[in-house]
This record gives sequence, structure tokens and C-alpha cells, in this order.
Amino acid sequence: MKHELLTRQGREKPIKTGVLGATGYAGIELCRLLLRHPIAELAAVGSVSFEGKPLSDIYPALRERTDLVCESAEQVIAKSDVVFAALPHGLSEDTAAVCAKAGKVFIDLGADFRLDDADTYTSWYGVEVKHQELHKEAVYGLPELFREEILGKRIIGNPGCYPTVSALGIAPALRAGLVSKTGIIVDAKSGVTGAGRGLSQTTHFPDCNEAFSAYKVASHRHTPEIEQTLGKLAGSDVVITFVPHLLPVNRGILSTIYAKIKPGVAFDDIREAYQKAYEKEQFVRLMPKGQEVNISHVRGSNYCDVQIYHDARTGTLIATAVIDNMVKGAAGAAVQNMNLLSGLPEETGLTDIPLPF
Amino acid sequence: MKHELLTRQGREKPIKTGVLGATGYAGIELCRLLLRHPIAELAAVGSVSFEGKPLSDIYPALRERTDLVCESAEQVIAKSDVVFAALPHGLSEDTAAVCAKAGKVFIDLGADFRLDDADTYTSWYGVEVKHQELHKEAVYGLPELFREEILGKRIIGNPGCYPTVSALGIAPALRAGLVSKTGIIVDAKSGVTGAGRGLSQTTHFPDCNEAFSAYKVASHRHTPEIEQTLGKLAGSDVVITFVPHLLPVNRGILSTIYAKIKPGVAFDDIREAYQKAYEKEQFVRLMPKGQEVNISHVRGSNYCDVQIYHDARTGTLIATAVIDNMVKGAAGAAVQNMNLLSGLPEETGLTDIPLPF
Amino acid sequence: MKHELLTRQGREKPIKTGVLGATGYAGIELCRLLLRHPIAELAAVGSVSFEGKPLSDIYPALRERTDLVCESAEQVIAKSDVVFAALPHGLSEDTAAVCAKAGKVFIDLGADFRLDDADTYTSWYGVEVKHQELHKEAVYGLPELFREEILGKRIIGNPGCYPTVSALGIAPALRAGLVSKTGIIVDAKSGVTGAGRGLSQTTHFPDCNEAFSAYKVASHRHTPEIEQTLGKLAGSDVVITFVPHLLPVNRGILSTIYAKIKPGVAFDDIREAYQKAYEKEQFVRLMPKGQEVNISHVRGSNYCDVQIYHDARTGTLIATAVIDNMVKGAAGAAVQNMNLLSGLPEETGLTDIPLPF
Amino acid sequence: MKHELLTRQGREKPIKTGVLGATGYAGIELCRLLLRHPIAELAAVGSVSFEGKPLSDIYPALRERTDLVCESAEQVIAKSDVVFAALPHGLSEDTAAVCAKAGKVFIDLGADFRLDDADTYTSWYGVEVKHQELHKEAVYGLPELFREEILGKRIIGNPGCYPTVSALGIAPALRAGLVSKTGIIVDAKSGVTGAGRGLSQTTHFPDCNEAFSAYKVASHRHTPEIEQTLGKLAGSDVVITFVPHLLPVNRGILSTIYAKIKPGVAFDDIREAYQKAYEKEQFVRLMPKGQEVNISHVRGSNYCDVQIYHDARTGTLIATAVIDNMVKGAAGAAVQNMNLLSGLPEETGLTDIPLPF
Repeated sequence: MKHELLTRQGREKPIKTGVLGATGYAGIELCRLLLRHPIAELAAVGSVSFEGKPLSDIYPALRERTDLVCESAEQVIAKSDVVFAALPHGLSEDTAAVCAKAGKVFIDLGADFRLDDADTYTSWYGVEVKHQELHKEAVYGLPELFREEILGKRIIGNPGCYPTVSALGIAPALRAGLVSKTGIIVDAKSGVTGAGRGLSQTTHFPDCNEAFSAYKVASHRHTPEIEQTLGKLAGSDVVITFVPHLLPVNRGILSTIYAKIKPGVAFDDIREAYQKAYEKEQFVRLMPKGQEVNISHVRGSNYCDVQIYHDARTGTLIATAVIDNMVKGAAGAAVQNMNLLSGLPEETGLTDIPLPF
Repeated sequence: MKHELLTRQGREKPIKTGVLGATGYAGIELCRLLLRHPIAELAAVGSVSFEGKPLSDIYPALRERTDLVCESAEQVIAKSDVVFAALPHGLSEDTAAVCAKAGKVFIDLGADFRLDDADTYTSWYGVEVKHQELHKEAVYGLPELFREEILGKRIIGNPGCYPTVSALGIAPALRAGLVSKTGIIVDAKSGVTGAGRGLSQTTHFPDCNEAFSAYKVASHRHTPEIEQTLGKLAGSDVVITFVPHLLPVNRGILSTIYAKIKPGVAFDDIREAYQKAYEKEQFVRLMPKGQEVNISHVRGSNYCDVQIYHDARTGTLIATAVIDNMVKGAAGAAVQNMNLLSGLPEETGLTDIPLPF
Repeated sequence: MKHELLTRQGREKPIKTGVLGATGYAGIELCRLLLRHPIAELAAVGSVSFEGKPLSDIYPALRERTDLVCESAEQVIAKSDVVFAALPHGLSEDTAAVCAKAGKVFIDLGADFRLDDADTYTSWYGVEVKHQELHKEAVYGLPELFREEILGKRIIGNPGCYPTVSALGIAPALRAGLVSKTGIIVDAKSGVTGAGRGLSQTTHFPDCNEAFSAYKVASHRHTPEIEQTLGKLAGSDVVITFVPHLLPVNRGILSTIYAKIKPGVAFDDIREAYQKAYEKEQFVRLMPKGQEVNISHVRGSNYCDVQIYHDARTGTLIATAVIDNMVKGAAGAAVQNMNLLSGLPEETGLTDIPLPF
Repeated sequence: MKHELLTRQGREKPIKTGVLGATGYAGIELCRLLLRHPIAELAAVGSVSFEGKPLSDIYPALRERTDLVCESAEQVIAKSDVVFAALPHGLSEDTAAVCAKAGKVFIDLGADFRLDDADTYTSWYGVEVKHQELHKEAVYGLPELFREEILGKRIIGNPGCYPTVSALGIAPALRAGLVSKTGIIVDAKSGVTGAGRGLSQTTHFPDCNEAFSAYKVASHRHTPEIEQTLGKLAGSDVVITFVPHLLPVNRGILSTIYAKIKPGVAFDDIREAYQKAYEKEQFVRLMPKGQEVNISHVRGSNYCDVQIYHDARTGTLIATAVIDNMVKGAAGAAVQNMNLLSGLPEETGLTDIPLPF
């Protein structure tokens, strides 16, 4: 290709990566990030639907940035040190097994390795866990909360988008025991890329544009994942009410989280807990007082912006948090996990500034 | 004008109406409805900013549908039997006094006559009540909940948009004592017309489009209005947590309401309470099970659609309700109130079917 | 149903109508209009995909406004005096034959009866004309240009959306011989409902939102239809360049039309020709100088707004015209044709004022 | 600030840059690009409206990426080797004079230095040229067409957005003499950021969303700029018809250009001319046959995508071209010019891959 600087793929890049499910939304976003990663090379892309087709035919946005042609999973795994899988749930386990055997790092953007408890997984996803032994080697990849546990692992369950933004929104208060662990309500709103590239009436433009609704009310599969994380932070089981809504925008999730402040806790203490929790986190920005978080402030970036409020009339902590669901909620988090595992600074290749409009 | 059927203004229409603040969004929506009302005539329109200009110059959508030119408030009042005021808060009281003296019906789309308690009004709006005597004659105009009280009144405080959709969403459960009156959370999302026609950076297209944020968290002025209505339904004071969000669409509000189900109450009883409450209401549609409410299902109409869910894991009632904030949340409700006062069927002139897309 | 005024279907309505393809976008828009038509009753709705299902299950916007259940084409035809067909092209001819035999009026929203010349139809649509005899009885239903020819007919080819707005935009100048009939360029932009309810990657929300492209450049099937109309107005064959674009909005088409002004023609003469042409047309609004047309000014209505400009530097007439593609571009025009055929004022049931936002 | 890799401003970056008008849309986009430029440092930002305020208070998207506080123009110029000005037209000339005297490179994103002919400038912009001598040293900065002329210059008139995309769309055909230079029509559609950050009713969300109109028909100020470029390519004066439209999206321009193919010219020759013209251009991508250009394919990037079509029925070349108006149409082009002047590869700091959704 003609671009000198634009396409310096493969030169002096010690980490070879491959993306399975590369033509889905999370997959292509991974490709976008990996193609510009200074240390990792995008060595191969996999797609069942588009095998044999150039990736840039399916996503013209990538034209002249990659010559990669979609290959089979086997080919992708063979060419990669790190394998990212952006596949429908239930399909990652077998691939993980292959990767484990071949000594590859496996980072799963699906749900197969997110839940510690096999029964919980089966009950919410309707699929049996097949490779229980792999789950013992796997780890839930939310570095801001579980960094130490991730180091040294080779199978990563990359967190879901709603769980990431919701956990980061409430974590400092819950971990410090400043709010009650019962009665937590998560009211979340996601852009349409969260529903993926697959067609549906709900995401058909005229039905989706200028529309807004709740969906999977109190029954969304991210519920147990959020609860698992909050439970770890709280030190015991947490049960939440979780209601997602479909927002007529492309990218972004905002999660509004309601929690009861414990008696005797001052709001300033909560604010301080947030400040301490995030002051060294590269990708979490606690907003100064008076500044709202907005999905438009993190667009295209790996940031999670957080703001908290005190409803003194009812003793409620209201936490709001936003991410770009495609980046911090999927592909960016996956790259961050790869960086962490590889001993690179976590922000390597994730330095995009949000598009302000 | 050339249109025979399109513009049969003034013929055989016994009710003469005028709109103050006609060039604001609620005002023009009132004009749109009144111009096609079979019994009421739009006799005059008032605007401070555009006095002397034809209304259709400001809103070309109305071209060839009205020749009305913006006039002063005095002129509008003189020509009308029913005066609608879509003015910034604090400006309606004096106008109401003039109308009362002149024997006109006054329907206020602003906030001046919504709150029973003068101190509450002052504390949230920063304005003193000037005409306390008028407030004794005024009534809160939410027919579905307070129909009997409205009959015979001549000053109507037309409800706010958030209070309408939120109250209709939770009313049946609260009135029947099936949910706790403490801990109610209202997480609401409104289209941008709710912010009015006035310019602001927040509503500048590139800043608002593909954006989403909470605003006035736990401090929005509609809070005491919602609490007043819920308190009347519950029989004693109710304090809620209310968080509004700005949705990048033109029209529509969705309110998601969380309430604790009282011990021993079956969800079927709640569903039955909703069915009974709304089975005869023309403008409230309780969705069948499995069907979400969506702001796109009520677009341009006076409907409020309601759906309820049971979060059995936490004992929570989740109620969702939608309205077109410009119609049932403002102009349509005002016309409904006029109809009610005038002895007309409430749906007169409000028979538009929602635009499905 | 509970609504007295909202649903007075069937009472004192002498025209019984049926809609085939009722669950498509044009079909449901027809239902929306016919359900409120003061003279016509929506007697039956047909759908192959949803036979046996209530219409309001598919379009919750219509809940409590109709109890109609989707039926077979045979059933719909049997119950109707006027049959509207909103079917894919190639499927209307047989239905028209059945209707003709049964003495029903047939109004086709598809393309089968739009083109006079069978070879042109076959060449652009790839389908043979089967019932040549029916085409002799059929007429192209654009009342503003061909009103006299429509009267008394019983098979109507309802015009395409692009042809309607483009023809109305340039007709007065072309008919009066004020512009050259060669070199006409039509650059048109349509909202996404124009692509119908069927799913496609192009109309998947994240791919369509914040996107814009030309499509079917110089090869769209509406080209010969526009040329046929312009040719009739010009008195001889017209060949145009037509480029449609997909606009990320739900409703509306804007057509920008470029034509060379003939030597010696003053722009004032052109303006006068437009004024004369449309001064008595109920649904065409010529904008005053200085006022742009905008798709938002006709939303939900049967209007076509037109504005013209003089590019004196190049001797070019620039005409801009807008319609709501679902109303004047489809369902509204069909109702207008029915009214015309039935001896009703053309605007009967088409008196909606555009939603200004 | 906490970010190691994210904010390595100022280290080992030999070019010091400053942005005047940094809080406008083009200005902040420049900041976004310069903050990540590997060779240039963003040394200072200027704003009249926000002097003394941190840039990230105005654009929270940039929080934790810059500590810069808005300063006066004098301060910015003093701290910079290269000064970018994103100011309203008429304000750049004086600043350019100051920069010239101080030996700074001046890159003007406004219109002051785009037109060679002072009278043309005055006639379209209503402002007199004050510093005629500066214009002799200035150059029009469209590298793909005038690269040689830019080298060594110190005052750059950065091209307008419409002129960039329109010129790149038609240049190869016109320069090679394959199309007629008379009768060229440019029908362009721009996202709303093109109108800038300033508030107006037209760009108020509810008035702009779901709307579409032409504006400044045949009278837009970019007309003479397009003509100047096309004239240089054609070798003699070119007069065009130019009609811009406002597209309800944030970013992106699509220009559809119509030109008459000269007799005897084969379309394959035109295609070949485009291929040759752009095969070595880093930022221009000629689409393969069958692939449309779409504003969504260049979002956030410095690309200009081009596709051409043959309307054989009328002998017309239809060229379509897209850019991100904020990048290739403003800030990206300015950085490209800086790179060119500084002897850097043109793509330095401009390697962002378009966000595919």
C-alpha cells in the first residue's frame, strides 16, 4: 500500500495479534485499535461470514489501511500470539481450549469467561460450561478493579459494556462501605452499536431513530456480571435492579446508579473515596463538581468519566458514569488487558483523544 | 386563503381561544392543535418577540393554515374566551389576574399554578407568589387523576411534562397502596423540545446530537410537583429521587420508575390495579405483557403508554411510561383541560394517531 | 374499544377501503390516514407476513385505534370498494386484474402502473407486463399535473416519491417552455423510510446514522418515471440525470433541480409561472422569497413546498421541492387520488398540519 | 497530570504551535490533533471569549489531556513557531502581519488568504483587503493540487471545506481536459459542525434534527474559491453553480459534482486520470467500482474518498467526494500544511483511522 506512515504494520512489532469475529462491531473496533498500536501487529483476522474477503471491502473506512483478508479461526490462531475473540456467547470456550493448548493468550470479548459460577452462567445464558478447567485459569479483565489478579493470566474474560461502566461508577463507594449494598438500582442507557452488526427490526433506522425504550427489563444477562463485581467489592453477595435502555446514538453508554448512603456517612467522604480510587487511573476521569458526564466526552476513546451527586433529601448517592461502549466497553478494554499482560503501559495504543463532536 | 377544508377557522366554532407565547414550542404546538379543533377557534396569538409578524413566517410548517399575526397579550385576551399561556414561570400570575377579572378561562402551561404550597413554589422557583387569592380558585389539571376537581374551575395549572408521565406511570400502584411510598426513584429521559425554543450550547446541534447526559440531578423543579401528586395519591407526604436526562431526539419522554412492592402484594394485583385505573381512560394505554413502551409509539399524539414489570429478585415494581412531551406533556393536555371545562368529550380535537416513524 | 371519538370507524362512512401490504411503511401510513378519514372506512388490511395478527401488535402506535387483524388479499378485496396495494413491484398487476373484474377501484402504490411504455418498464424493472389491457384503463395519479385524466379512472398508478417531488419542483417552468428540456439534473435526498421496512445493512442504525451517501447513481428506477412526466409537460422526450442520496432522517425528500433558463427569459416570468401553477393547489405551497423549503416543514402532511432561485451567473434555474415521502410521496397521494375519484374534496382526510419539530 | 503516555506534551517536540480561536470547532479539532502530534507541541491556545479559562473546562472531552489555559493572541504568538488562526473572516490579516514581522509561520483557517483577487474577496465577503503585500507571500494550501507552490511559504490560506472536497472530486477530469469547463454543477451537503460553535435557530437541535434544506443557494462564499481552483486546473476562468445543503449530522461533507464529458472522451480514460492523479496521494482514496463514498467512511480522519460515475444517457460525469469537514476540511489540512512546510511526511500526526460508526 501507498501509505508509509499510515500503515507501518508488521515492522518492529513484537506482539502478533489476531481477531476472531473481526467483521462484527467489536471486532472491527479491535482492528482499528490494533492497526495503530505501536507494539502489536494485527497479523490476521477471522470471519465465518466473510472468509476470503478483504476486510476493507466490508468496512471501507479501513481502505488503504490494511490488506488483510478474512481467514478461518485456525489460520488466525496459527498466526497470532494473542487471540481476541469477538464471537457470540457459547462459541469462545472451544477456541480458548485450542489457544491454551497452543500456548496463546486468549482474550474473550464474549461472555463465556466472565462469570465465576458455572450455574449462574447456565441459568442466564442457557448454555452449559464445557471446559470447567479453563475457567480456573481465566480471569475477569477489569484492570481498574482487579489489576493484580489479571497479571500472569492467559485467558481473559473481557468485561461486558454495562458491567464496566456500572461497576466503575459505584465501585469506590461500595468498596469503602459508604453505601448500602442492598437496594442498588442501575438505570443504564446504551447506544445502538451495543446491539451489534446483526440486523433486527428494533435497530432498523426508521424504527430506532427518534425512538427510546427500555428493554430486557430486570432480565438482562449483564445483571449477574454486575452483581459478581459488586459482590467482590462489597465482600458479600449483592443483588441489584438493572434496567437497560436503547439510546438512538451510535456509541456510548451512560449508567445512572442509585445507592443508599449509610447512616453517618458524609458526602464529602464519598467524594474523597472516588478521588483516591481514581487519581492514578489513566482511563477514569472523575469530573470536577458542576460538570456532568456525557457520552459525547468519551467518544472514540478508552475513558470512563464519572460524576457523583448527593440527593440529601432522600439520603441517596447518585453516580453517573459514561464510556464508549465500543472502546472501554469492548475493544479498548481488550487492548488494555493485552498491554497489562504484556508488561506494556496500559495506555499503549489507547491514546486517542475523544472526538468532541 | 385557498384551502377550503384545511382552514375552516372561525366557522361554527363557539369557543374562541388565544395563545400567549405562541412562538415558543409549546405555544406553536397549541396553535397546531387548536387550528384543527372542531369546536374551538384560534382567535389570536401573542408573542413579545415577534409582535406584528405573521405566525407562519416564524413557523413555515403552518404556512397557508393561518393568517394570524402575533399580537400583544392585551389584544389576545380581549379576543378570547379561553386564554392559554405558554410563558416563562413567574409571568403567568398577572395575566391570570387580568383574565379572572375579565371572566376568561385561563390555562397556564407554565409552573405558576401547579404547586399548592406557596413556600414550596418560592423555594424551588425563586419567585414569590403574588396573587394568593387566585391560587385558591386554581386547580392542577391532570384529568386522569383529578378529573372531578377540575370541573367548574377557571384557572388551570397545566401539569409539567415530567410530572405527567411520572405520575401516570406509578399512580395506580401508589393509590392502591401496593408499593411503599418511600424510596421511589424516577429516572426520566426527555427529548430536546422540552428545553424549549431558546438557544443554548447544550442544545446546539453538534453538542446535543450523539450526546446524552443527566442534568439538574436531584434538583429539577419538577421534583416538588411530582411529589405533590404522589402525595395526594398516597394520602401523605412523598419524597422522591428524581433524575432527568437529555435525550437526543425531538419529542418524547420516557420515565422509568422504581418502587418497592409492599410485603405480601402479588404482582398480579398490581397489574390489575393498573388495568382498572386506565381501562376507561381515553389517553392512557396499558401495554399488553411483552410489549415495551417507546416514545416513538406516541409521537404527535396525546397518549400516555404505560408498562409495568416485576423484578422478583429485589421485590421492585418497575413502571415505564411515555408521552409526547409537547402534546400530553404540554399542549395536548391543555386542550384536554379546555375540553373538560367546556363540557366537550375530552378527546375532541385530540384524535391524531401517533406517527409510527 | 373504549374510545368514542377516536375510533368511530364504520359509522356513516360510505367508502369501504382495504390496504394490501398494510404492515409495510407505506401501508401503515395509509392505515393511519384512512382510520381518521371522515368518509372512508378502513374495512380490511392484508399482509402476507403477518396474516392473522392484529395490526396494532405490529405497530403499537395504532393500539386502541383499530382492532383489525391482517387478512389474505382475497378477504381484503372482498370487503373493499377501493383497494390500495402497497406491494413490491410485479405483484400488483394480478391483483389489479382481480379488482377490475370485481368492479373495485384499484390504487397501486407500487410501480406496476406508473410507466406508459411496457418496454421501458421491463428494461428498468426486469419484469414483463402481463396484463397490457389493464394498462390502457390505468392512469398516472399525480392530480396537480394530470387531474383531468384521472377523473373516472378505476386503476391508478400512484406516483413514486422522487417523481412526485421532482416533477412538482420543475413542472411550471418546463410546461411554460421557460427552461431547456435538455441538461436537467435532479439531485435528490430521501429519508430512510423511503427504503421501506425491510432490513438491510445500509439501513441498520449504526451504519445509517451520521452517514450520507449517493446510491443507484444515474440508475435509479424512478428515472424513467420522472422523464415520462417531464416529457408530457415539455411536449417531447426528456432525458435527465438523476442522483438520489440517502438522508439519515426518518421522513422527507428534498429534490434540488437544475435547469438552463432559455435565452431571453426573465426570472420574474418563471416565478410568475410557478405562482399561477400553484395558486389554487391545496397541497403545493410556493414559498415567499427568502424562505427556504425544508423537509421539516411538511412532516406528516400532504404538502409539497417549492422554492426557486436564479443563478444569474450561469443562467440556471434552481428549483427545490420537499415532501413527506410517506404522505405526499405515497399514502397521502393515494388518499388524494381516492378522494378525487370519489368526488370528494381532494383534501378530505388530509388536513393534518405538519409537525413543526 | 497523571497520564504518562497520554500527555507527553512538550518533550522532544521541536515545533511549537499555537491556536487562535481554539474554542471554536475548528480550533478545538486542531488542538485534538496537535496534542497527539509526534513532532509538534501545542504550546498555547488563544480565545477572546474564554481567556483565562482552562481549555478542558470548555471541552471536557480534553480533560486530563491538556492543562492549557486560554490566553491572548499576543501571548499565543509569542510562544509559537507556527500560529494557526481559526477566526472569523476579516480578523486574520492583522494577525498574519504580526506573525510575518515576528518570523512565525501563519496558517489561516479563515478565508482571508484564500482568494488571489482582492476585488473578488471584497465582493463576496464585504471586507477590504488591508495588507496586499502579505497576499503576495501567501499561498493556497491544498497540497494534493498545489504542493510545489506551498513549499517554502510562510503564510498559508487553508482551503475551505466545500472547496477542498469539491476540487478534489473533479480535479483529475478537469485538469486533463476530459470534461467541459462550463456547466459544472456542485451540489454539496455538509454536517452541522460546518456552521461552527455559534448558536443559531437553524442549528438549534429540534429545528435542525430530522430537517434538511438548501441554504445560500448560488450565493455561498465558497463559490469563488472553488472557481479559482477549478480555473487554475482548467487553465482559464471557470464559473460554476454551487448549492450547499445542511445535513443533520455532526461531521462530514459529500459533494456531488456534475460535468459534461467532452465529445470523444471514453469514461475509462476519466477513470484512469483519477487513478493516476491519486495513486500516490496519502489522503485521497479512489473507491473501487461498485463502492459508494460515504461521510461515515472518513469520520475523524484526514481522508478524502472519491468515486466517479458515468451517466451514459446524458454524457455526464458524476463525481462524488467526501471528507470530514473538521479534519480534511479544516484542522487536518492545516496540520498537513504545517507538516509540508516543516519537511515532515505529510501524514505525520494524521494517522487516525476513520471511526467506522
